[in-house]
Amino acid sequence: MAPNEFSESHRVVYYEADDTGHLTLAMLINLFVLVSEDQNAASKLTPAYIHSLGVGWVVTQYHLDVTRLPKIDDTVTFKTRATAFNRYFAYREYWLFDANGEQLAYGEGIWVTMSYATRKIATIPAAIMAPYGTEPVKRLPRLPRPERVAATATSRLKPYTVRYFDIDENGHVNNAHYFEWMLDTLPADWLRQHQVVDVRIRFENEVKYGHQVTSEVVHSATETTQHTVKIGATTAVLATITWQARD
Amino acid sequence: MAPNEFSESHRVVYYEADDTGHLTLAMLINLFVLVSEDQNAASKLTPAYIHSLGVGWVVTQYHLDVTRLPKIDDTVTFKTRATAFNRYFAYREYWLFDANGEQLAYGEGIWVTMSYATRKIATIPAAIMAPYGTEPVKRLPRLPRPERVAATATSRLKPYTVRYFDIDENGHVNNAHYFEWMLDTLPADWLRQHQVVDVRIRFENEVKYGHQVTSEVVHSATETTQHTVKIGATTAVLATITWQARD
Repeated sequence: MAPNEFSESHRVVYYEADDTGHLTLAMLINLFVLVSEDQNAASKLTPAYIHSLGVGWVVTQYHLDVTRLPKIDDTVTFKTRATAFNRYFAYREYWLFDANGEQLAYGEGIWVTMSYATRKIATIPAAIMAPYGTEPVKRLPRLPRPERVAATATSRLKPYTVRYFDIDENGHVNNAHYFEWMLDTLPADWLRQHQVVDVRIRFENEVKYGHQVTSEVVHSATETTQHTVKIGATTAVLATITWQARD
Repeated sequence: MAPNEFSESHRVVYYEADDTGHLTLAMLINLFVLVSEDQNAASKLTPAYIHSLGVGWVVTQYHLDVTRLPKIDDTVTFKTRATAFNRYFAYREYWLFDANGEQLAYGEGIWVTMSYATRKIATIPAAIMAPYGTEPVKRLPRLPRPERVAATATSRLKPYTVRYFDIDENGHVNNAHYFEWMLDTLPADWLRQHQVVDVRIRFENEVKYGHQVTSEVVHSATETTQHTVKIGATTAVLATITWQARD
């Protein structure tokens, strides 16, 4: 495997699945991030070392392409590649394969390093890219963006309060929780009958412990849902999800 | 290992930990249940087989004794024993050990089989106990019970709505979520400075998708918290937790 690639296997267990027995979208994101953290750790780029440089990685966008989600007791392989970066942005790819090597899901994400001192985007420190053995590039691939929600559409709203256990060791809300807030606004029976095909999500503003957020979904006539998570009038997250009926 | 014992190792990862980097109480419960499910599966007692007998396992009580909770990247061992059972109740024990075999936590639980037809407690089918190689007993150990909350105490309340992703493949709320609802009522800084030592919890009534529950905590002068989770006036869960200051 190239120095910028890394993979590891994982057994799907009951508490990672929904009531249809499929891995949840939130856990897919958790496991994509885990394989990249494990790649970093294998290159001695531990969270503590990165923190010592005064920065932390923050994701700004994901695009996911899901063929099908694995079920409880399936053993799957997660793979990631630190594909390309420039001064401010890093483009990372993710794959999920079943036991036969068939692709179940693909993901791409744009990450930035945030300065702990200024809470603003910082130049990516050279030391944290060097182990991948890639050179900076001029242009990074662009991810498809979520659509802006049409003002005329009818929507459903649910409020969620950020809980203590939503915060991870970095002191931020674990991004996987946004997927729970977004999808929980849809009816349970509809969720049981549909599976995610494509996700475009953009993280615009940070949500913090104790914030009350509003998760809004617009469900268009086609199998597409548009999601907004807001803190008051401020948009925290925008997403467009495409679905298909489950077999 | 005796036929009624089973163990497996586990690496603690970032999304299983709170913002101090320690495994959460909810994940401790998830992993205790996982080792027992894996023991069952190794004896061909899969959820589907148990379901085919018209019953499902439901926990009624736990008692936990926690020395310390492991941290992110620790490799630990979970062990369980189907220790004893009678006509209606099964007594199961759980252990968590660190990489040196030192005990980090101990748990005991009382489980019953519930009939899918009547939604009531059913005689435990002989077929699902036979693989453990133990005989039914007259008397089971009794677990310490949570204390009833004093009516004069001042309390904190938080409402929680049961989400679609709180339901597991059995169609029930995953019990681990009760621990999130109970502990999230305590202030974040207090949670950061304290660790769980002892938990006594009793599950009295089932919570379902869409229910709004109220989680109430009474924090006494000693390092003890008393918890009630209610659906309207109905008590779903009662718990008493003892804490100590973290090092």
